[in-house]
Amino acid sequence: MKKLVCIRHGESEWNKENRFTGWSDVDLSEKGHKEAKQAGKILKDKGYDFDIAYTSYLKRAIHTLNHVLDGLDLDYIPVEKSWKLNERHYGALQGLNKADTAKKYGDEQVLIWRRSFDVLPPLLKETDERAPRNEKPYRNVPKDELPLGESLKTTIERVIPYYEETIKPHIEGGENVLIVAHGNSLRALLKYLENLSDEEIMKVNIPTGIPLVFEFDDDMKLKDHYYLADEKELQAKMDAVANQGKAKQ
Amino acid sequence: MKKLVCIRHGESEWNKENRFTGWSDVDLSEKGHKEAKQAGKILKDKGYDFDIAYTSYLKRAIHTLNHVLDGLDLDYIPVEKSWKLNERHYGALQGLNKADTAKKYGDEQVLIWRRSFDVLPPLLKETDERAPRNEKPYRNVPKDELPLGESLKTTIERVIPYYEETIKPHIEGGENVLIVAHGNSLRALLKYLENLSDEEIMKVNIPTGIPLVFEFDDDMKLKDHYYLADEKELQAKMDAVANQGKAKQ
Repeated sequence: MKKLVCIRHGESEWNKENRFTGWSDVDLSEKGHKEAKQAGKILKDKGYDFDIAYTSYLKRAIHTLNHVLDGLDLDYIPVEKSWKLNERHYGALQGLNKADTAKKYGDEQVLIWRRSFDVLPPLLKETDERAPRNEKPYRNVPKDELPLGESLKTTIERVIPYYEETIKPHIEGGENVLIVAHGNSLRALLKYLENLSDEEIMKVNIPTGIPLVFEFDDDMKLKDHYYLADEKELQAKMDAVANQGKAKQ
Repeated sequence: MKKLVCIRHGESEWNKENRFTGWSDVDLSEKGHKEAKQAGKILKDKGYDFDIAYTSYLKRAIHTLNHVLDGLDLDYIPVEKSWKLNERHYGALQGLNKADTAKKYGDEQVLIWRRSFDVLPPLLKETDERAPRNEKPYRNVPKDELPLGESLKTTIERVIPYYEETIKPHIEGGENVLIVAHGNSLRALLKYLENLSDEEIMKVNIPTGIPLVFEFDDDMKLKDHYYLADEKELQAKMDAVANQGKAKQ
């Protein structure tokens, strides 16, 4: 049986402040560091082992991965970082507080931006310094490949080819693969692997720091998927994510 | 002008206990973590930037690199890990306390093992569980490439081809390259780059956590090399390394 394990990074400084983060490169909060270490401990306790790991260009994911590999005593395995595993780019919303944005535009519009499948956020101008084409980490990427703002649909369009071309061959080859990424890049993958509809994926909330295991048969057909956490902890985490976009009373 | 920056990992738990560490995968001490963060801060303050980083399979080097990249806000750059940058393998001495070994064999024999160019330490048996060929991180490396104990000479024989074939092309191509490695793998590199004799390299002590900069001209001829630290701090650190092998009074 072939396995893939995915982890959403722990809480970041901006998750805590309830801001649209996207590609803003903010660090983990103290709680986020703890969640990451806990994820490593869970995998260690359950006897998981990995041959290779993938993560994004964003430090909240990279630091989560570092903690997990340390916990597993697997610091030495190869790690490939790709912007294609980055969070969905929130365009001109990046940096705004979700509750304030909800007050200004209404809960409904914010929920549309956060949970609709193909509605783009207000896009950044090409000259905006927050546009990835003007940011140093992406200086070697062709400008026209980089987004000015993404929907879940356009996020999928960069995550899945990367998974298919770069990650999947390692799973097929019998390697144990770990991916540490973000709420929406992991939703993109989950939609694809579980063959969920555009409507179904909008209801899925991936909790932070809980290993999500996918099991495949030898033909890479998905056999099972499950979180490595007890039911109660899982539900509390999912509810917390679902409530993030609502205006505070 | 082309540049290469090398850093010896910060103090490890076994440096502190004055034991022969070699390929034993011990973590940084608290002081070692601080030294690593300080190295990142120095490089940040002086405006250094990197395109790619190389390190060993050993966590004390990998964790040092993680701290340095975090301090530089360069978590996203590619990192290549290779066992060829590992510390010199100390064979059957690994794990022994240096002062006790000195008491047992005499200061002179320990100094020969530590500071002679081509005298091998007592070798591990092929069946010894400490032999890299039996250790999990090296399971994909051909057994006959892996040592049972190394002198500085045999360490050089694996470090320099890796530098020549894998690292140097990046420096030649104009990339800023960072290497975080170990006392002896860095001495191997330093001997080669500075064209030191077998006798000269034995007197060189590389301090922990101090960035060592090599500057090359366009033909990769070494123009200059220097540490990013003040003279007094440097001397104190070098003396500390030189005194490690002596029996405590």
